[in-house]
Amino acid sequence: MTRTVIRGGLVITAAEEVKADVLIEGEQVVALAASGSTVAAGWTADTEIDATGHYVIPGGVDAHTHMEMPFGGTYASDTFETGTRAAAWGGTTTIVDFAIQSVGGSLREGLDAWHAKAEGNCAIDYGFHMILSDVREDSLKEMDALVAEGVTSFKLFMAYPGVFYSDDGRILRAMQRGAANGGLIMMHAENGIAIDVLVEQALAAGQTDPRYHGEVRREVLEAEATHRAIALARVAGAPLYVVHVSAASAVAELATARRQGLPVFGETCPQYLFLSTDNLAEPGFEGAKYVCSTPLRPREHQAELWKGLRTGDLQVVSTDHCPFCFAGQKELGRGDFSKIPNGLPGVESRMDLLHQAVVEGRISRRRWIDIACATPARMFGLYPRKGTIAPGSDADLVVYDPAAEQTLSAATHHMNVDYSPYEGRQVTGRARTVLSRGTVIVDGGRYLGRAGHGRHLARATCQYLG
Amino acid sequence: MTRTVIRGGLVITAAEEVKADVLIEGEQVVALAASGSTVAAGWTADTEIDATGHYVIPGGVDAHTHMEMPFGGTYASDTFETGTRAAAWGGTTTIVDFAIQSVGGSLREGLDAWHAKAEGNCAIDYGFHMILSDVREDSLKEMDALVAEGVTSFKLFMAYPGVFYSDDGRILRAMQRGAANGGLIMMHAENGIAIDVLVEQALAAGQTDPRYHGEVRREVLEAEATHRAIALARVAGAPLYVVHVSAASAVAELATARRQGLPVFGETCPQYLFLSTDNLAEPGFEGAKYVCSTPLRPREHQAELWKGLRTGDLQVVSTDHCPFCFAGQKELGRGDFSKIPNGLPGVESRMDLLHQAVVEGRISRRRWIDIACATPARMFGLYPRKGTIAPGSDADLVVYDPAAEQTLSAATHHMNVDYSPYEGRQVTGRARTVLSRGTVIVDGGRYLGRAGHGRHLARATCQYLG
Amino acid sequence: MTRTVIRGGLVITAAEEVKADVLIEGEQVVALAASGSTVAAGWTADTEIDATGHYVIPGGVDAHTHMEMPFGGTYASDTFETGTRAAAWGGTTTIVDFAIQSVGGSLREGLDAWHAKAEGNCAIDYGFHMILSDVREDSLKEMDALVAEGVTSFKLFMAYPGVFYSDDGRILRAMQRGAANGGLIMMHAENGIAIDVLVEQALAAGQTDPRYHGEVRREVLEAEATHRAIALARVAGAPLYVVHVSAASAVAELATARRQGLPVFGETCPQYLFLSTDNLAEPGFEGAKYVCSTPLRPREHQAELWKGLRTGDLQVVSTDHCPFCFAGQKELGRGDFSKIPNGLPGVESRMDLLHQAVVEGRISRRRWIDIACATPARMFGLYPRKGTIAPGSDADLVVYDPAAEQTLSAATHHMNVDYSPYEGRQVTGRARTVLSRGTVIVDGGRYLGRAGHGRHLARATCQYLG
Amino acid sequence: MTRTVIRGGLVITAAEEVKADVLIEGEQVVALAASGSTVAAGWTADTEIDATGHYVIPGGVDAHTHMEMPFGGTYASDTFETGTRAAAWGGTTTIVDFAIQSVGGSLREGLDAWHAKAEGNCAIDYGFHMILSDVREDSLKEMDALVAEGVTSFKLFMAYPGVFYSDDGRILRAMQRGAANGGLIMMHAENGIAIDVLVEQALAAGQTDPRYHGEVRREVLEAEATHRAIALARVAGAPLYVVHVSAASAVAELATARRQGLPVFGETCPQYLFLSTDNLAEPGFEGAKYVCSTPLRPREHQAELWKGLRTGDLQVVSTDHCPFCFAGQKELGRGDFSKIPNGLPGVESRMDLLHQAVVEGRISRRRWIDIACATPARMFGLYPRKGTIAPGSDADLVVYDPAAEQTLSAATHHMNVDYSPYEGRQVTGRARTVLSRGTVIVDGGRYLGRAGHGRHLARATCQYLG
Repeated sequence: MTRTVIRGGLVITAAEEVKADVLIEGEQVVALAASGSTVAAGWTADTEIDATGHYVIPGGVDAHTHMEMPFGGTYASDTFETGTRAAAWGGTTTIVDFAIQSVGGSLREGLDAWHAKAEGNCAIDYGFHMILSDVREDSLKEMDALVAEGVTSFKLFMAYPGVFYSDDGRILRAMQRGAANGGLIMMHAENGIAIDVLVEQALAAGQTDPRYHGEVRREVLEAEATHRAIALARVAGAPLYVVHVSAASAVAELATARRQGLPVFGETCPQYLFLSTDNLAEPGFEGAKYVCSTPLRPREHQAELWKGLRTGDLQVVSTDHCPFCFAGQKELGRGDFSKIPNGLPGVESRMDLLHQAVVEGRISRRRWIDIACATPARMFGLYPRKGTIAPGSDADLVVYDPAAEQTLSAATHHMNVDYSPYEGRQVTGRARTVLSRGTVIVDGGRYLGRAGHGRHLARATCQYLG
Repeated sequence: MTRTVIRGGLVITAAEEVKADVLIEGEQVVALAASGSTVAAGWTADTEIDATGHYVIPGGVDAHTHMEMPFGGTYASDTFETGTRAAAWGGTTTIVDFAIQSVGGSLREGLDAWHAKAEGNCAIDYGFHMILSDVREDSLKEMDALVAEGVTSFKLFMAYPGVFYSDDGRILRAMQRGAANGGLIMMHAENGIAIDVLVEQALAAGQTDPRYHGEVRREVLEAEATHRAIALARVAGAPLYVVHVSAASAVAELATARRQGLPVFGETCPQYLFLSTDNLAEPGFEGAKYVCSTPLRPREHQAELWKGLRTGDLQVVSTDHCPFCFAGQKELGRGDFSKIPNGLPGVESRMDLLHQAVVEGRISRRRWIDIACATPARMFGLYPRKGTIAPGSDADLVVYDPAAEQTLSAATHHMNVDYSPYEGRQVTGRARTVLSRGTVIVDGGRYLGRAGHGRHLARATCQYLG
Repeated sequence: MTRTVIRGGLVITAAEEVKADVLIEGEQVVALAASGSTVAAGWTADTEIDATGHYVIPGGVDAHTHMEMPFGGTYASDTFETGTRAAAWGGTTTIVDFAIQSVGGSLREGLDAWHAKAEGNCAIDYGFHMILSDVREDSLKEMDALVAEGVTSFKLFMAYPGVFYSDDGRILRAMQRGAANGGLIMMHAENGIAIDVLVEQALAAGQTDPRYHGEVRREVLEAEATHRAIALARVAGAPLYVVHVSAASAVAELATARRQGLPVFGETCPQYLFLSTDNLAEPGFEGAKYVCSTPLRPREHQAELWKGLRTGDLQVVSTDHCPFCFAGQKELGRGDFSKIPNGLPGVESRMDLLHQAVVEGRISRRRWIDIACATPARMFGLYPRKGTIAPGSDADLVVYDPAAEQTLSAATHHMNVDYSPYEGRQVTGRARTVLSRGTVIVDGGRYLGRAGHGRHLARATCQYLG
Repeated sequence: MTRTVIRGGLVITAAEEVKADVLIEGEQVVALAASGSTVAAGWTADTEIDATGHYVIPGGVDAHTHMEMPFGGTYASDTFETGTRAAAWGGTTTIVDFAIQSVGGSLREGLDAWHAKAEGNCAIDYGFHMILSDVREDSLKEMDALVAEGVTSFKLFMAYPGVFYSDDGRILRAMQRGAANGGLIMMHAENGIAIDVLVEQALAAGQTDPRYHGEVRREVLEAEATHRAIALARVAGAPLYVVHVSAASAVAELATARRQGLPVFGETCPQYLFLSTDNLAEPGFEGAKYVCSTPLRPREHQAELWKGLRTGDLQVVSTDHCPFCFAGQKELGRGDFSKIPNGLPGVESRMDLLHQAVVEGRISRRRWIDIACATPARMFGLYPRKGTIAPGSDADLVVYDPAAEQTLSAATHHMNVDYSPYEGRQVTGRARTVLSRGTVIVDGGRYLGRAGHGRHLARATCQYLG
């Protein structure tokens, strides 16, 4: 078995910061020893990686991506190949993407289709959540089988009537099933029925610019749906994971439920932490670059999201990576904001943006690893294989240079999309060396990985429970 | 013009308790003067009513009745004739009943049908709310016309899918229209979509007894719907009146909204204040007598409802009077609780049950009049014509004996229903003399009124606003 | 007996707005009759007052004044003579002032001293609260006697250590006694022990300007003391009335307690509703004019106070009238804000400022009368003698011109103080004719009253309880 | 250097559960390697400890003990020698005890006295907090020096007037100083001024039994003091650690503050989690065994405390170990509960009682280690030296048998006290082998340690901040 040792770095996990050398055999971490100790010094290895002055962190776990996702007649512009390669560049070594059940179709068909897209194409390991678009008696039964084969989380939508939308009865049934088989329900929490009334009224009033996307998707309708999802989960006796929380009042709903001891979890995304309705209102059609759902919120919400990450009322930062090129894709919505494909690129920049928050004093280094690696892994049944550095963990590791300066830009990023929502933003910190299961796939600005290195991950059920 | 003077009573309104003589000319109160004053002594009248040792109170205003309402293939057993006569016996001189739009039908058709049922048959004055069963573009337009002719409140249902149910989009549209034309939206707040899943599951599990009616209609699903209705009202910029609040957690939702300054109002009913799930669980099929929606709650909720009435988070006590005989009607649901017609009798006993609460120290005398007369009148645009005693008010008055003892019973009540949910309950206090627009219609145990005395009331818009 | 009739006005009380003529015999209202009715037309009177186009309202009840109060070596500049005359000018016909127990002294001595100041000097009726400066076993016993003779409320201070301050043990004992004898505890709720540390630190740091008065008296220390007073009242089983609430977070504490059903009440003052820390920060030493405790708060608190008045979480608007001239009095604090006498004039302008809030749509007309007349009367045991217009009430009445325009100014006000905190402010509305117990004391810009007309009011206990 | 390897156990820290061998050199952990890996197999050691079937956990950190504490004329019955030996038996390898400033005395004198008591006598490592009994200008200055030498936390009392009590001004000053020098303020949060009134009244009423100790120390007075301490900490800009939280409403105060993002922390103790007022009310004088302050609460509070530990609103479980023998010590309070020395033994049983909570499903294994080892270490500046198992940590380790059954009893415990508050309670789990800095001090039922092995720990400042 190949042996690699990473020496002299500051090993940071969600719980610890220790000066330690990390010994890898084959695909796994086998030992940590105090740097400079006789034991560590005695380790011989095929490859020695010098991490002096660097952090050694677990590879990022991005629990919310949409590679090649069909939306509004087009497809998200990153394939599993381009998207996972970009993830690797950014220090992320695991993604969990969403397979989609089509209306009238089976879960199996949807899952098979997504396996086909991913298999042999990924640079890093990947898992699947399943989107339930059509909660029928037979699809409820299929949930059990998927859980058994490692697809242990199911996304429902309270928005997008006619596409992904489930009514409260279907949601309740799916939650009950999940409570029984261990499948975790993930919720897109926006009252889409009410929103669609407002969309229609806005368009009828000639309010067609991108910024109206943010105005009609009212904050109170995100908070309402969050509250309702929590109520339904209580009735079902099920846990709940709310995706892409953007509104301060939705965080408050989660916080209230958590204080009551309910197993309720919340995810936010870098776009909500770093961008705002100011971007949606950029002149011309520029705002279209920032159209996603839930939408960006006014700037003052950012502080509440950061607070939620500090208090633990939010637990995970994923990307909801779902890029559409400005040219030809976002442009579909000129003159009608409701036709702009919803989604932003992000899988490559998440680890760096969150490190920037460390630099700015918003979160600690350990909390950075917690929300970006350890908790998403634990939430989705991948721990301690992913998300930490411990004897027995997969050797998904990043040697991170905390002092490197970079400028985010479409000119330099590796995602297959023609713009960056963070164009020109300066951040401090960058992945220098990235290992996936013991193999170096990025090093010093060179990509050394390959499509097909990444394997499907059969996931356990949510490890935050029981 | 006929002159009547009521002498020597304690005149109690929502605001005052004064020893005063009340002078009536024709159908209205024209003056109040201190009892024993020269002025009062100088009043001559055709009729003198001695109220010494009694209260003189405004006639009760019951803002929530369903005479002859069709439900589940049968009809509420009180007609406008029998129901309003029973109301008079109990000291209530105004009801506001619900006209119903049928699915596919117009508001006009529904309203006309209800006018036809009531006209010429009522012992006391009456108004109408309109139930919106089918929110279409044309029914929204019709709302304006109804407001103009004095039907200024509109009820929507978040329960009963396929019958009265409106989805959140329809609710939002109706609220927006009400915000524009002054129509007040009244809400049956229960998540009926989720409840129907639980009903189906309960029946499938053989849980068919009446008590399961209370179990499947979960408290959290009333609170959820209340929260959602408030959110939609916020989006619409509309006020909201939640009918028949029974759950402590729903009161909490109202209280939270009110602390934020939102124009949100709540009504409860005597059945929720005096009865509980203990009644629903009575042996045999007795529990069917207590089946109504929202359902009765566990006993500990009563204290929270009383508290809500004291703190002002609940403002109105109406009856939701909707009686079905046990024999032949309630019995439709033997073996399937979901087939039990929903509703309880109450229009006759409300004033006395609430006076009993005065006797027991739960509320003050003034608060009794406030929640039973003044506030419902003000809420539904009838003030100061109804609900108070002041120069210019309609002479709807009750000489109330606070010391009379009575036992509530089907054997003695005047409602057209073969049981009393309060059978055998002793209460202190009883209406002795009841006047409707200056005419004595009940006195000393004799009914002196007549069908057709009561007139339709064209109501102003909600007087709690603006 | 002299008979007066006020004809044709809109009679406004906390509960009603009716077109009625008001008949007065001697000192009391004896009857109301619909304007234009035969009954009213038949009334003959010695004096007829035409109120056409005007409001007829109860005289204002100002439950918080400090005439001639000693403070920091000087005295409030209004005597009972000048202060009650100014009150009359402004439409206020009752004040409740504070007698003061001195440390080491008895309640009796304090009360006697204040009776001596007031007797024979007042233009309007007056009552007394008692300030407990020294809660001893014997002063607790004296409370019983004072309640028996109509001094039924007792003020305690959580601020001003060494002067008025009582520690939590003394507060608890006084509350327990009040719970037993019916005396209502009024609280100055600021953590004065902590504030005095900040005062000392500010002065040591050279922060001596008036605006630092506002900075050291931190909002959180008002909210804290309010919370603590509520906790102590819970332990004692006593009601609580918090005076001069100025902080939004203190309102929140009251609201929380009230939602729990606790008998907790709050008063605010015009200065907190109309002025802010912007005034305290006026250049030069101008800020001294606005020094009072609790202090003025940042402007955004005003909205929360108005909201509290609308939701009922605040019930009373009094003035805390305690004027000190700028020249010679406020100036004592040049170079040391802690030496500025605390207090503002206000007894004359309260009714008009609150009517201005009616004009601006902040509160309804009835709520205006409620917070300024009815509720203070009820709170302090004067209802229905004061605070309303009903048969049997004292004929303390104001014919109020809702359209009159005036400019508030020291040049025109009648309070004995050389500045106005509202200098130059335009308001709409003014008392035209003021009656005290049936006697016209102000009319059309002329003062017709006399020192000594006003009588001491032996008050009942708080009428909001039981 | 001596080498020890612990093989085959499940290494549990606050963050991870891994099958790993732990290598110790001298006093520290130097490496972890996957059990069974070639690397681990290659380790040679002087001592091999077989942990197969056992947990390997960090030694417990008890952040709240009072060895030999003077109280009410007597002394806590455990010396540093007996107390730390008992701690070792129970798997606790670090205590932080309280040195006491006497009124009028300096911090230095108090600290020196406690150093003298501890030095040379301890079986395990120990640190000191400092109790501030007399906040003077010079004692504030001394705080800086103590922080510099590793006494980085300071306890204040809102109870015990005349003994430890500080008023709000002194508290504020100490918090301000702590905010500047990094010293963490620990608070005994009970309104002792109000409690002492109730004590006096209870005794005067003949209520002298131990159970009245629980009744007079009202829950609301703990919640109030907690709220006030938080307010003062906000004013000071300081973090706050509230000791021995026992009331559900006090947890709620902490939770509210934490949701606002305030750096507020709470500790509870096993006695509050496992005992209740039922114990205080045991017949005879048995209740005296359970007298401590804050007092035991009614049984329903336990669930709220467990919930607080799960939600993270409580972070630490310490013991407040302060034993007094029943004979001769607790008995001082016969006939007067206020004379019963306050305190319970606990240092030996904490780890096992909390493990029992793991067995019963209340908390996870990782949370057990978190609240008992990792968080107290981090809170008080001892991490990662204490509280975890990582390369570089002190080798304070426990090989814990999760299946061992034991019965808690005074007959078998090692604390120097003649009763056990848990007498007869069965628990599952027990420390088998205990190491302190690499030395085995307890093994298989034998004590192998020695007085004087334990060293004083100079602590860093609170590691939850910055």
